[in-house]
Amino acid sequence: MAPKKIMRVAVAGLGRMGKRHVTNFHTLSPSSRVVAVTSPVQAELDWAAEYIDGVETYLDFEELLEKAQVDVVVVSSITDGHARQTIAAIKKGLHVMCEKPLSLDKSIATSVVVAYEESKKTFRKQKVMCGFSRRFDAPYREAKERLDANEMGKPVVFRSQTADLFDDSSYFTEYAKTSGGIFLDCSIHCIDLMNWFYGEDAKIKSIQAVGVAACHPSLMECGDRDNAIGLIEFYDNRIAQLYCTRMMAAGQEDTTEIICERGSMRINMYGQKNFVEVHDSHGARRKLPKHYYERFREAFATEANEFIAACINDTAVPITLTSSARAVAIGSALMRSLVTGEKILVDKKTQVI
Amino acid sequence: MAPKKIMRVAVAGLGRMGKRHVTNFHTLSPSSRVVAVTSPVQAELDWAAEYIDGVETYLDFEELLEKAQVDVVVVSSITDGHARQTIAAIKKGLHVMCEKPLSLDKSIATSVVVAYEESKKTFRKQKVMCGFSRRFDAPYREAKERLDANEMGKPVVFRSQTADLFDDSSYFTEYAKTSGGIFLDCSIHCIDLMNWFYGEDAKIKSIQAVGVAACHPSLMECGDRDNAIGLIEFYDNRIAQLYCTRMMAAGQEDTTEIICERGSMRINMYGQKNFVEVHDSHGARRKLPKHYYERFREAFATEANEFIAACINDTAVPITLTSSARAVAIGSALMRSLVTGEKILVDKKTQVI
Amino acid sequence: MAPKKIMRVAVAGLGRMGKRHVTNFHTLSPSSRVVAVTSPVQAELDWAAEYIDGVETYLDFEELLEKAQVDVVVVSSITDGHARQTIAAIKKGLHVMCEKPLSLDKSIATSVVVAYEESKKTFRKQKVMCGFSRRFDAPYREAKERLDANEMGKPVVFRSQTADLFDDSSYFTEYAKTSGGIFLDCSIHCIDLMNWFYGEDAKIKSIQAVGVAACHPSLMECGDRDNAIGLIEFYDNRIAQLYCTRMMAAGQEDTTEIICERGSMRINMYGQKNFVEVHDSHGARRKLPKHYYERFREAFATEANEFIAACINDTAVPITLTSSARAVAIGSALMRSLVTGEKILVDKKTQVI
Amino acid sequence: MAPKKIMRVAVAGLGRMGKRHVTNFHTLSPSSRVVAVTSPVQAELDWAAEYIDGVETYLDFEELLEKAQVDVVVVSSITDGHARQTIAAIKKGLHVMCEKPLSLDKSIATSVVVAYEESKKTFRKQKVMCGFSRRFDAPYREAKERLDANEMGKPVVFRSQTADLFDDSSYFTEYAKTSGGIFLDCSIHCIDLMNWFYGEDAKIKSIQAVGVAACHPSLMECGDRDNAIGLIEFYDNRIAQLYCTRMMAAGQEDTTEIICERGSMRINMYGQKNFVEVHDSHGARRKLPKHYYERFREAFATEANEFIAACINDTAVPITLTSSARAVAIGSALMRSLVTGEKILVDKKTQVI
Repeated sequence: MAPKKIMRVAVAGLGRMGKRHVTNFHTLSPSSRVVAVTSPVQAELDWAAEYIDGVETYLDFEELLEKAQVDVVVVSSITDGHARQTIAAIKKGLHVMCEKPLSLDKSIATSVVVAYEESKKTFRKQKVMCGFSRRFDAPYREAKERLDANEMGKPVVFRSQTADLFDDSSYFTEYAKTSGGIFLDCSIHCIDLMNWFYGEDAKIKSIQAVGVAACHPSLMECGDRDNAIGLIEFYDNRIAQLYCTRMMAAGQEDTTEIICERGSMRINMYGQKNFVEVHDSHGARRKLPKHYYERFREAFATEANEFIAACINDTAVPITLTSSARAVAIGSALMRSLVTGEKILVDKKTQVI
Repeated sequence: MAPKKIMRVAVAGLGRMGKRHVTNFHTLSPSSRVVAVTSPVQAELDWAAEYIDGVETYLDFEELLEKAQVDVVVVSSITDGHARQTIAAIKKGLHVMCEKPLSLDKSIATSVVVAYEESKKTFRKQKVMCGFSRRFDAPYREAKERLDANEMGKPVVFRSQTADLFDDSSYFTEYAKTSGGIFLDCSIHCIDLMNWFYGEDAKIKSIQAVGVAACHPSLMECGDRDNAIGLIEFYDNRIAQLYCTRMMAAGQEDTTEIICERGSMRINMYGQKNFVEVHDSHGARRKLPKHYYERFREAFATEANEFIAACINDTAVPITLTSSARAVAIGSALMRSLVTGEKILVDKKTQVI
Repeated sequence: MAPKKIMRVAVAGLGRMGKRHVTNFHTLSPSSRVVAVTSPVQAELDWAAEYIDGVETYLDFEELLEKAQVDVVVVSSITDGHARQTIAAIKKGLHVMCEKPLSLDKSIATSVVVAYEESKKTFRKQKVMCGFSRRFDAPYREAKERLDANEMGKPVVFRSQTADLFDDSSYFTEYAKTSGGIFLDCSIHCIDLMNWFYGEDAKIKSIQAVGVAACHPSLMECGDRDNAIGLIEFYDNRIAQLYCTRMMAAGQEDTTEIICERGSMRINMYGQKNFVEVHDSHGARRKLPKHYYERFREAFATEANEFIAACINDTAVPITLTSSARAVAIGSALMRSLVTGEKILVDKKTQVI
Repeated sequence: MAPKKIMRVAVAGLGRMGKRHVTNFHTLSPSSRVVAVTSPVQAELDWAAEYIDGVETYLDFEELLEKAQVDVVVVSSITDGHARQTIAAIKKGLHVMCEKPLSLDKSIATSVVVAYEESKKTFRKQKVMCGFSRRFDAPYREAKERLDANEMGKPVVFRSQTADLFDDSSYFTEYAKTSGGIFLDCSIHCIDLMNWFYGEDAKIKSIQAVGVAACHPSLMECGDRDNAIGLIEFYDNRIAQLYCTRMMAAGQEDTTEIICERGSMRINMYGQKNFVEVHDSHGARRKLPKHYYERFREAFATEANEFIAACINDTAVPITLTSSARAVAIGSALMRSLVTGEKILVDKKTQVI
């Protein structure tokens, strides 16, 4: 179909992921153009000006909001700024796609939901979505379709892991301090998938977690770990187990297993960077993706295209803001249990986590 | 080496596994012969008499102990009889290999250890071992060797599962009632592997578990589940996660993953019944083993051979009785947590579980 | 980098592959825009007019050449028209990317090379390339890089297959009649890869082939087969084996194996449509790609981008026209041997095939 | 079932494979005992005397035949002696299992068949079989059963390879001189499988082969190669392709693919030494079996058991002697084509190869 309507996009934050959003929304999404960017780093603005002829650049986010003529804001600034920028753009009536997580604080995450609900009374076609890329990944979608088609009965055990390549750089250590902790930084994707596969209204009964700081002992000081496992019980007779690690030696190993009454699905379990297998004196071996973007690059492009399509056509975005706020609350509870050792019980009715 | 000395073996219990022990000790272990068997079921004794010319058959275990001239007793009766028969044979000064678990009760399991320690004062060359077959499986052994060679640093996360094919027969439902619960029935192997890979003196800090009865809801009544996940924390900065299920649709999927500081090992993760892949309109597919014996058959034969060799040569058996009793205590604690929801804290020094 | 210069592209032929080229050159290649299309089918022109606002449409290729202001022509018409349209565009001094094969006739294929060499005397920056998509596929490129880095010594056995999903439609039967035969239709990719991996100046010594018409017996009538195997010997002590089939039940299985003195590489051997594995009563299974485009889609986009970049920057295209003409000659010889049963010997010096 | 009757076995030749036969027939086959052995090497006889109490040892094969009281002779001497010893034992009326190949010479191979046919007039229950171990391998058997059940239609392309680990020892170079050439030494198993899967009365139409001596150039001098590919055409519209190599870097890679009208089977394509996968900085890797015995050990034990059972019960052995002689003729023809470059045409009726 011809891209008749073009959405004007502003990208806020031009770090590694911000630059990728620029590419995806400007180049790989035929119905959108990036017309403005903002970053506190001049070099990043220069990069954008070089990449896109005539793009407007702003050192200040608020100035962009005030002056630039845009339809959509993509928020990919540091996590700490996600909620604030998202709320500001919401209030202007703009469509917003915000990088995950909405916030490291569940109250703040909830305040974004509230702001959006308020705003929609005025801007009835406004779309706001937190960008959980795996929801746009073809394998995960096939799994969801098979579940929805009830091919193998009710899912009763959900196991998912986010396993990052070991990073010994000082960058990582600095980054980790403000990451919110391993369950909010890494497992947030798995939590979102759990919400998706089990349904976001599934009632949680208990949350507990254990973990260790094996390769990054300094993480202990900021209440974090480099390996952790969480267990979540639901009132409707299901359980979930989430594993996260920052210690993988071979590459990124994000895997998910959905075990149903009459069959199971395993996603990414036989990971491969590409389709090359080398046979030599080391045996038969293949490479794994090094980073999430090597594995999920295409999902991000799909995400950009589908979000834009929802804005243009006024259709529902595939991820509700409520479920994204709930993901923050679940991640926070997992962190709390990880640090205190406490098993967190959740009231069936109030579901306050 | 020539099988110069032949050990005379009695097999107690001739159910499915008992018959297999008869084959392994009589046919596939050149240094042993099965000379006597006992079972309360006449038809099973008839089977043995047909299989082995001249084998002595006893309906009563005590009568066998009294009359038969044997060096070794293999206990593969119902779980409830394991400890009692093992202790009786120990007191006679015989070598004993007992099927797992030693008991469903940790005190009784400990009493077997005590009986053996007492007996060894008299019978200094006596061997007693609980048969955890996976310790004799080549892949698990390769993993242990790599760990011991410190190829990838200290192991910090141990994940293991025993996943049985769904069985809807009334046999299963009856059996389950006396199985001691899923962690004692299924995960006991994984617990033993954890003891092996982490060291049996690793100090446990906490134990917690969750589970569901999805396909066999009646299991709830006898305090059991058909899917359960356990988490174990150690004082020396390691964690373990055990999953067990009786609901697999494709076959037995017993897998183990050992995640170390600089690498990881996955055992059985790409399971295949044999080496045939079929490509047709269903896609590319392979069969999985249907039962543990399809996968571990060879390990059982190795177990028989190595146990006999230890008896003949007076060398150490590869599994200490203490660790097998500890496995029962851990399994019992997991069951307790599964049913009560309680997180069990373990004192660092006493290690009373 | 910013797409400063934009190449104006005409696409000739708007069948399945032509439409994909329109998408790739117009949408997924930021430095090119499709400004004109031609097809003898009005409905296809209508599709283009709908897809691209303001695109010029021509029922007649020559008219397009005469009137449209373009820099690049992409030829994806029926195979029979490839050479004629390519030569016409060459003579106009335009850059040309032509779908494989250049022709079903080796003399005609050679005439394209001659036309280009003549034209380049005038249009020194002109680029002409036959589009062999696998050269742009990341796995194949990694294999080539490993070879070039001499990681495993000289390659001595090259095995490659193009294996298509069985197609029982009358479309296929009609199509097959003019496809040039299975080695020219399917194996042409493998032949090109052989030229690439072995070097296009490797001297061929002999060519022989056998085949059967198992599922499409009517192919015999037009001198074709649905399964065929070719063997190629080189004077420098290497061999190649090419398998092609139109009878696969599970999906497209294009695989390549490069066996070197000290190691080997297998490409696509563990094919998977995506990363989902389903475990159910059929066993453990995965889907395979159904068609070449499911597997190589990304390579086609890379092809478009890189061809355009070579045109803009006046750099060499990655595939020489000579090697593409040679591929036609090799494919024709394989067909000849397939039909006559003759082993074709090739003179070392003249290399007339 | 009880091993009531015990066959007395003599093993002739105690090299690597001979010793394995001793183990299999004496230890792993409950219905047979090795009572006599012969070898020209005293140290090998000493090994046997140590392994089996009271075994008779002979430096001379004829003396064994004359003096030893045996029911079965297992011939595993050097290839050159296979036929002579087999015929001598046949004439004594003994059951004979002879290692593959029957001979390196097709006439001599045929003379074994003739001798057996003659002998059977007298010794009506006599069994003679050439030991092609893969026929006793569970995966190959499953493939055959699926074929026989017509699960996927008629098989039309058979591809099989015997791929040995590179061996740079002087042992190999010496051995190769008398091995009969790569098709007779390595591919003979694949030829036997082809006979089995296609039926031993399938009419061959042509045979051709090419090859190189890449890592062992000295093989050229004795008319041999270290990599070769053969093509075989059948009159009933099927083809076969056989690849053999002595240059594998990672391990033994014996694979087979059977492509049928409505599906295909791949055997050993995802080879693994055991079920361990290591993830480290080299990627995700597994070991392959180093030698055929690592992969097929169990098949050899099955072979021993089933051959003995056929002798005891007077049932047909699973491999006809005629097909084993035919395998020698096919292997010889492949060698001839490999050396001369000639395509060998075979008369449909006489089938003289």
